[in-house]
Order: sequence, then structure tokens, then C-alpha cells
Amino acid sequence: MSKQQLSSVKVFSPATVANVACGFDVIGLAMDGTGDEMELRISDQPGVRITAIEGADLPLEAAQNVAGVALMAMLQEYGQPELGIEVSIKKNIQPGSGIGSSAASAAGAVAGANKLLNDHFPPESLIRFAMEGERLACGTPHADNVAPAIMGGFTLVRSYQPLDVIRLHTPEDLWVTVIHPQIEVKTSDARGILKQQVLLRDAIRQWGNVGALVAGLYREDYALISRALEDVIVEPIRSILIPAFHDLKLRCKEAGALGGGISGSGPSVFMLSKGADNANAVAAMMESIYAPLGVDYRIHVSRISTAGVRVID
Amino acid sequence: MSKQQLSSVKVFSPATVANVACGFDVIGLAMDGTGDEMELRISDQPGVRITAIEGADLPLEAAQNVAGVALMAMLQEYGQPELGIEVSIKKNIQPGSGIGSSAASAAGAVAGANKLLNDHFPPESLIRFAMEGERLACGTPHADNVAPAIMGGFTLVRSYQPLDVIRLHTPEDLWVTVIHPQIEVKTSDARGILKQQVLLRDAIRQWGNVGALVAGLYREDYALISRALEDVIVEPIRSILIPAFHDLKLRCKEAGALGGGISGSGPSVFMLSKGADNANAVAAMMESIYAPLGVDYRIHVSRISTAGVRVID
Repeated sequence: MSKQQLSSVKVFSPATVANVACGFDVIGLAMDGTGDEMELRISDQPGVRITAIEGADLPLEAAQNVAGVALMAMLQEYGQPELGIEVSIKKNIQPGSGIGSSAASAAGAVAGANKLLNDHFPPESLIRFAMEGERLACGTPHADNVAPAIMGGFTLVRSYQPLDVIRLHTPEDLWVTVIHPQIEVKTSDARGILKQQVLLRDAIRQWGNVGALVAGLYREDYALISRALEDVIVEPIRSILIPAFHDLKLRCKEAGALGGGISGSGPSVFMLSKGADNANAVAAMMESIYAPLGVDYRIHVSRISTAGVRVID
Repeated sequence: MSKQQLSSVKVFSPATVANVACGFDVIGLAMDGTGDEMELRISDQPGVRITAIEGADLPLEAAQNVAGVALMAMLQEYGQPELGIEVSIKKNIQPGSGIGSSAASAAGAVAGANKLLNDHFPPESLIRFAMEGERLACGTPHADNVAPAIMGGFTLVRSYQPLDVIRLHTPEDLWVTVIHPQIEVKTSDARGILKQQVLLRDAIRQWGNVGALVAGLYREDYALISRALEDVIVEPIRSILIPAFHDLKLRCKEAGALGGGISGSGPSVFMLSKGADNANAVAAMMESIYAPLGVDYRIHVSRISTAGVRVID
């Protein structure tokens, strides 16, 4: 370890939207305004220790905590599994919200710790470590949320064997508005209702949209992004789990949204917009639809982050 | 009509590769070196007349000819169905080759005639007219070949209802090598062996690759293009119709190709390469594999066209 090494670091780790419409299981994005805050410190006591979690009732035992297991995977590959690292977490993302709560903690932990290791690991490795947190959280080491949390912007997970993650171009004026209805949708239930087989013609429509969405991002063509934000495979099935989904989507588009869909496996719903004004108008529309429903909700408005996990203070 | 109007025009209309690997039914590309040559003339005799076809045994009757029906659709929308247009065609693309023979004639006819109409129609309209030629040729008005023939480069057909075609960025040094085994694969047969349902996990892999391919084109990232040139849905089924397909693909990649697949519905096979040297090495490899097989073949080596149909002479 070099002499300039930091002994502690504080990071912001963003909330993320996975399953961006047609890009089910492959395209995710990072938010700028909502995320966990974490502090990591080199410690004399060996091993990973979670010293405090504020804002959510989550296990402190490292082996049972997504940040803990991600860090343990990292230290293992670093060749110093007994290196002492302390972590304290301020959760601003509610677990079960569908905007990457576990991913933010796992990604923030390894990206923060990487600062303490003088940026020893490239982003691809950090994604692999953080995926171990996802394995603990939901049984599958998926990268949909940890990839944008670490890389920022839009990311595409092309392949898992081998892991191949591409950071896509992100137009500067793209914003996201997320409504999180305070209901529980278990990822396992949301997975369970999907069909294992799909119609070839629907799949073709979906990959046409994926190609168009990626082209729209690179061209910064907001109209094309809007047309491509369509999911003919998963949304028709999963949207029944979310109160007022179709009304929400239709009226948010009338209010200026480019389009959107279910965030992750729900229950949050995201809408993309060009510019802050539209994103805020969409938030107001979401509020006007959800306020009479008697379902509690939270709304987040954020520019798409281009940074991913970042050092703060 | 304005006074500067041309009374005749000669065009080159490129061969095209549809179903570019993962981009089945949506991504196509235009070749630069291989294509039909066509001459169009304003005539005093009303209606569309095909005066000569060189190089292939195709119907001269306009209503039975792909160029004829495409032109008739165009003149109908122009509001002058009785305008006299004569067409002569030099076919350099063999019908049934899988590199867009009918599309080249239909696209060349309408893009050429559009010159005689002072560029009255935008490319999107020309694609719609040329699709009428495809309807005659194969029963379905698909745009996979006519879109790249008219727009040049790589194109993506996002949607048919409404028609939404996107011209993708095309890296300058991208070449294509095509081998056309002289065997017959009927489009209807190639369609018939496809399954109507596919596994969701295969579809996800496919659209991850489509997104990555489009990103690779915009980034001019040849390694990414190479990784994304994978088709887990259609190629495993259709490749059995093509002699030595797997050997061809494997050894062409060893010879320097980025990757490739079946062109259109076959029997042609295409491989993309970075630079002319690699494309020519791939051609030599194709030859060495096919020469001992006793199947006649033609090989085409070409830069990816960025022009589409273009005026010559």
C-alpha cells in the first residue's frame, strides 16, 4: 500500500433504476439526487465490520449484510481478507423500493473501499464484488443495479459469462422521476409471474426497441428515446401488481414524460423526461394520481447521474 | 414539377445484409461494391414500363416486377399514376442469394425515380414504396433490406406500425465479406422452421447483444461489435440449411473476422471485419473452406456503404 493512502472516505451511492422498459434485465440507470451515504475506515481490528446503519433495520453482521459480503469478496481477491475495514451506512433508499437499495449499499461499500486501496480495482471488478451483495439480497448475483451504481449513467449488461458491462452515453438533460408506492412486491413474486417462453414476434419488437433506445441515447434524440421506451414482454404481466399503473403511465406522458415503466421488479415506477421542469411536472402528476388512492408513496426527482458512486465531504 | 428536372438518371443500388446476427428482423446493412445498376427515364408513354433486365430471368410486366410495383406505389402517392417512367435493370445480385436482390431493384427504382421528381419524397416514404416490391417478392412487405439499400450504412427497423426506421452510425473502417453458396434456400422454408415461441432467457441475451451492437457502432468499438455479433435465437435453427456453416464462422473469426452470421434468410453468410485486409483474408478463408465442398459459390468483399442508392455516371 502506498503512503498517500486514505484512512477513511465518505461516499454517496446512488439509487438506480433497473429493467429500463424494453431493456429488461440488461439496461439500468443511476439517479443523482437519491442515494445512500456511507463512511468507510481502515481499522486495526481485522475483517469487515458494519458499525452502524441509520434509516433501515438491516443486519449488522458482515456476512449477513450486502455491503459486508461485497467487501469480503473484494478483500479476498485483494489477497488481504483480514484487512480491517469499518463501515457505517446512512440508508436513504428504502429496502424493497425497487430502486436498488441493496445495490447502493454493496456498490458504495466496494467503490468506497477501493478509494482506501488507491483505486486498485477497475469498475468491472467492483461490479463483480457488489454482485455478491445482490446474491445475498435476492439469491441471484445480478448486475442490473450495481452496474449503474458503480459506473453512473446508463449501463448495459451484455453478458454474465463472461461479465460484459457497457457504459452507454447519457444525454445531459435526461431526468428521471420515480414514485415509490409503499406496498410490498417481493422480487421472487415478480419473477414468478413471468412466463419462461415469449412469442418470437414480441421478442423482435423488444430488441428493436432496445436497439432504438441505445441509438437514441447516443444521438441524444429525446423523441427516439420516447418511442423506444416500450416493454411488450414484462410490463403487461408485472404491471398488474402496481396500483394505477396504466393511468400513471398515460397521464405522466401527457404531463411531458418521454416514457417509463416499472423500476426493477417494482413497486416503484419511473418516468424519464427531458429537463427538470418536465420531471417536476411528472412528479406533480404522480402525486395527483396517488394522493386520492390512500396508498402512501414517496417521489424522487433526479437528473441521471453520470458519476455513479462518488466521494463526498 | 420544376424546370431543372432530370429526364433520365442512372443509379447504383446496393446489395444488403438483413438479419445482422442478434438483430434478426431489425438490423440491416448496405454493401458498397455489389449492387444492381438501373436507368430510369421519363417517358411520353403513360405508366411504368420495364424495358430491359440484364443478368437475371425476371418478369418485364411492371405489375409482376418488384421495381414496377414499387414505382407504381410511388406514382400513386405522387398523385400522377399515369406519369410515364421507363426502367432498365442490370442485375448484379442474383435472385435468391440472401443479399437483397429484390430489395435492390425496388429501392433503386424508387430512389432513382425520386431524382426525376426533384427529391420530392423523404427516405421514409421511399422505404414504404420499396416495401411494396418486397410484398410482391416474398409475401411480406418487410423493410430489412430496402431500408439499408435506401439509407445506406446500418439501419434499424424499430417498428412497422407506424414505420420507424433509424439510420445507425457506421464506423468508417467496417467491411463485410459475403459468401453466396449456389444452393436454394426458400425464404418461406427458412421462415417455416423458426419456432413461434422462444425462451425468455434467450430473448434477453439477444436484446443485450442488440443494445451492445448498436453501442459498438456508435462508439466505433470493434471489439464490442465483435462480442455482440451473436444470435442465440435464429442461427442455431437456420444454420443447418447452410453447408459448413459452423466451420465457416469459426475459421473466418480465426482469420480475422469480427463475427457474422446468416445473411437474410440465407444461403449467403456474411462476416464483418475491421479493414480491407481482414475482409480479404476472410474471403480467402471462405474460399479454402468452400472450394473442396463441390458447391459453387460467389464471394463479395465490400466496405459498408454509407450512401445507399447513389447516382452514377
